[in-house]
Amino acid sequence: MNKIITVGREFGSGGREFARKLAELIGFPYYDREIIIEISKRTSLSEKYVQNIAEHKPIIPFPIHTGRTFFAIMPDYGQSVQAEQHNIIREVAANSDCVIVGRGADYILRELNPFRIFVYSDLESKIKRCRENQSKDYEQNEMTDKELAKRIEQINKSRADYYEFYTGQKWGDKANYDLCINTNFIAPEKLAEAVKNLIL
Amino acid sequence: MNKIITVGREFGSGGREFARKLAELIGFPYYDREIIIEISKRTSLSEKYVQNIAEHKPIIPFPIHTGRTFFAIMPDYGQSVQAEQHNIIREVAANSDCVIVGRGADYILRELNPFRIFVYSDLESKIKRCRENQSKDYEQNEMTDKELAKRIEQINKSRADYYEFYTGQKWGDKANYDLCINTNFIAPEKLAEAVKNLIL
Repeated sequence: MNKIITVGREFGSGGREFARKLAELIGFPYYDREIIIEISKRTSLSEKYVQNIAEHKPIIPFPIHTGRTFFAIMPDYGQSVQAEQHNIIREVAANSDCVIVGRGADYILRELNPFRIFVYSDLESKIKRCRENQSKDYEQNEMTDKELAKRIEQINKSRADYYEFYTGQKWGDKANYDLCINTNFIAPEKLAEAVKNLIL
Repeated sequence: MNKIITVGREFGSGGREFARKLAELIGFPYYDREIIIEISKRTSLSEKYVQNIAEHKPIIPFPIHTGRTFFAIMPDYGQSVQAEQHNIIREVAANSDCVIVGRGADYILRELNPFRIFVYSDLESKIKRCRENQSKDYEQNEMTDKELAKRIEQINKSRADYYEFYTGQKWGDKANYDLCINTNFIAPEKLAEAVKNLIL
């Protein structure tokens, strides 16, 4: 059976850098934005549009009780984008060992017993990390710390909502992961070195 | 500055085995029951009595608002046992690198920036681990799974109460730790090997 590593991560925690480094160290294919690109190809929808749908829970004005109801009222292409996302995650997991970032892959692939990692840090550490990467994001460069903190929290709220909507589980609850890693004091790359020994 | 590793652990999760193995691998002194023995020596109270006080929050019939109030109403030798426990934890951390299990050491030593680990697992895995160790505990041998589950949960409730009483923090909340490790699928000894690389 293939070895599947899933990495949930708080925005600003360096979880993506960790996952990329880990994949590199253990020689596994890495899937993150690659999934969006593949959905875009298969559905002929723009990458930006796909990303918006694939990474957010649908906006629905009343409670949902069953999968059937959910699919009946999904707006626009939401249903097919989510379905493709599930298909692609299952396909890559069936094809080879891999590292998959976000997208509720830990839950989607639960029957394959993935090794489930969650990467987090405190808000101060997230702000610091975002500032270090700020040259890549011009909008962020202009923000005060307070504005940036608000943005970080909004993004993480959106990730939590997405995860909880599709899995019925609490995002970041340690019971749902095999390893929870705090990046406050340790660089993601160093963490990847250590986690490599757990996986191989 | 000395390197301090603290290990919080759910009863039945194999956290003690993990901590002992880790200490052995990195060559650090290991403190767990050793602290009780030392308190017993210093206070001339029996080890059993010391353990009972040192590992449980005091039973007090009304709410506590300040440290002063707390000390005024601590029953019997509670105050001196807790004070000795704090002293010994601070002493061992000042003396050398070390691994300290439980006792809120992560909080007591917070100014020394310990590396804070929490070890947990699900109830089924805890029952299995307790059964594997059952020859050491005759009372436990006679229990049904339901009784054993209840006992495990009681012990962990007591640990949570103790931690929360003395630290004001939630026991096992990942925000208070650097690494949270689930032993459902990985043996504590294997985990220790991996964590060694994070610490050294």
